Amino acid sequence: MRPVAIIGIGDTRFGELWEHSLRDIGMQAGISAVSDANIAGEQIEALYIGNMAAGSLIDQEHLGALVADYSGLASLHLPAVRIEAAGASGGMALREGYMAVASGMHDIVMVAGAEKMTDVADDEIPMIQMAGSDQQWEGLTGATMASLYAMIARRHMHEFGTTREQIASVSVKNHRNGAWNPSAQYQKAVDMETVLKSPMVADPLGVFDCAPISDGSAAVILAPLELAKKYTDEPVVISASAAATDTLALHHRASITRFDSVKAASDLAYKRAGIRPKDIDVAEVHDSFTIAEILNIEDLGFFEKGKGGAATLEGMTEINGVVSVNTSGGLKSRGDPMGATGIAQAVEVVRQLRGKAEKRQVSDAEYGLSLNVGGTGATSVVHIYRRG
Amino acid sequence: MRPVAIIGIGDTRFGELWEHSLRDIGMQAGISAVSDANIAGEQIEALYIGNMAAGSLIDQEHLGALVADYSGLASLHLPAVRIEAAGASGGMALREGYMAVASGMHDIVMVAGAEKMTDVADDEIPMIQMAGSDQQWEGLTGATMASLYAMIARRHMHEFGTTREQIASVSVKNHRNGAWNPSAQYQKAVDMETVLKSPMVADPLGVFDCAPISDGSAAVILAPLELAKKYTDEPVVISASAAATDTLALHHRASITRFDSVKAASDLAYKRAGIRPKDIDVAEVHDSFTIAEILNIEDLGFFEKGKGGAATLEGMTEINGVVSVNTSGGLKSRGDPMGATGIAQAVEVVRQLRGKAEKRQVSDAEYGLSLNVGGTGATSVVHIYRRG
Repeated sequence: MRPVAIIGIGDTRFGELWEHSLRDIGMQAGISAVSDANIAGEQIEALYIGNMAAGSLIDQEHLGALVADYSGLASLHLPAVRIEAAGASGGMALREGYMAVASGMHDIVMVAGAEKMTDVADDEIPMIQMAGSDQQWEGLTGATMASLYAMIARRHMHEFGTTREQIASVSVKNHRNGAWNPSAQYQKAVDMETVLKSPMVADPLGVFDCAPISDGSAAVILAPLELAKKYTDEPVVISASAAATDTLALHHRASITRFDSVKAASDLAYKRAGIRPKDIDVAEVHDSFTIAEILNIEDLGFFEKGKGGAATLEGMTEINGVVSVNTSGGLKSRGDPMGATGIAQAVEVVRQLRGKAEKRQVSDAEYGLSLNVGGTGATSVVHIYRRG
Repeated sequence: MRPVAIIGIGDTRFGELWEHSLRDIGMQAGISAVSDANIAGEQIEALYIGNMAAGSLIDQEHLGALVADYSGLASLHLPAVRIEAAGASGGMALREGYMAVASGMHDIVMVAGAEKMTDVADDEIPMIQMAGSDQQWEGLTGATMASLYAMIARRHMHEFGTTREQIASVSVKNHRNGAWNPSAQYQKAVDMETVLKSPMVADPLGVFDCAPISDGSAAVILAPLELAKKYTDEPVVISASAAATDTLALHHRASITRFDSVKAASDLAYKRAGIRPKDIDVAEVHDSFTIAEILNIEDLGFFEKGKGGAATLEGMTEINGVVSVNTSGGLKSRGDPMGATGIAQAVEVVRQLRGKAEKRQVSDAEYGLSLNVGGTGATSVVHIYRRG
């Protein structure tokens, strides 16, 4: 397998994009990635689309062909396919695109993620989100995604003494970062009191502990490293791509305060990249709920199990902390258009490694990591990146 | 890229499987493939699931993790992902699995397709099928999949003098073949008069011109060829894997009597395999409607454009004809559980190349081909296989 680099990135602002359809936003992100990569659209040899639920959300499947078509590439007859792994659809799409280039099957590949969530009634969303969990044994018995993560939070508090303030500090940090990100859904800092007093969703998690419903799209262009330098002076190498699964339902796990799929995927990724957790400078992780970020930074090996909450409250995951986590604002503040999220994570890491993250730039960032999670950890995808 | 072989196959009978859930049938096909491959389940390194619409059909996404979990593989934390390209989801899943092995990323990979279509009300099915076409510009304006293929049929009759009897002869042949296939949904021959007099669906296509709504699953196990001989004396080599797209909507094409994506994918596949259309002994093609098989056998280069109907009526695509097409019974008789169809095609070709297709066995079959189509040709996937 040959080394693969990201040579172009693009994204839309995340949010309630009433004026744009799914095909619009997919196209916008794609065109901006093509332009950033200094390639012509006709050079794209294959297209991978991360999307979780367009079938349920807008009655449209077949997004591979759709995006190829509406990007003006239909006459190329290139292979295009949609990749789905619930909230980890974007990350899994990146992994498939990575393999397509690493294998030698294709040179220039576009991987895009897109989701249009605001076109359905609010009361349809929980059922669609629970399609990423075990609908039969969790969703249909009344569990919502927030209630499952609330149980995780309660148990984490019980086992490790994690406090409500520690959990809330994830939201405060991510909103602060998001305020500096022009692509973020919420570009506004919030204080601890606002998070603690926000309306309850599922005890102990309030509104400000939950990532929003979002529309949005993000895209990257991949190329073999040897070719990358033809197009850019600042390629970002994908040092490792790894994915892992676990039981679909939370109640089948030995423990609900760790995600074994995160540990399995990240252990493999560190090994493939030849580095250790402490080598990571900047990480985008899957804070669909504040408690999830605490689990993530523990399971990724950044902090000991049970210490993630304290580390966050003490500022260790702030920009230029021990490790800068969710500089984009994360899912909480940047937004979470499900299939787009994994690609948006890659886009942020590339901006950081290029030194182009402006007010939220991490000093001398050399290694980056993204962790994209589906459901309650039934799928985890980890990518490690380095300056090329 | 290294050569890849199929070392194991499995399937369920297709049909109205009221007593089985999606996870049941996915598991059944998978277990039978594992057993056929003489491997232990723990040897599987990655899982690819072809599925079109479980989100809309049964409110369940995240089928990669689900199938891994319910197959007892959760503790392995292996990567698993769902691949979607409408009716071509199975074929695209096979292509991704093929790349995962060819690249050297994985050795033993399972690719399974599954769909459970009969658990929703009949009147929801057209909308779900049209999610494979352009819902916005075709489905929501009143077109159904049958009506789009009916327009193709009318135009083919107009341009090439194709007759109603020629179109109907596809159904007669495929039902005859299906009667010999213990996995087929309809194991019953029908005569020309039955097809011609069947209730009209969309003029000129009657009920017997349309593939049914089906539940079902099929699975294959892939391995590098060099390893394959350790497990089986009869590996089947995947000589080529190619996919292509076209406009999502039919009205954007220069012609509706050919599918350019089929030509693009098959031209590339023949080139990669180093063979010509006339070298193919057995082919499973995408007869979601009878007229589709006529287009397919023309666009694949088996017959000149416009001659597919006459060739079929004259018996040239019967078992041991010029080329044996849809020996399984095809989508019409074997059934069409959308995401499973592309894998079922591979399973049938492997049975033929192993010489294990019993009453429907093609003599001395050396080269096989499968063509899996999504929508009205917006995605086409072609695989070429040979005896190992």
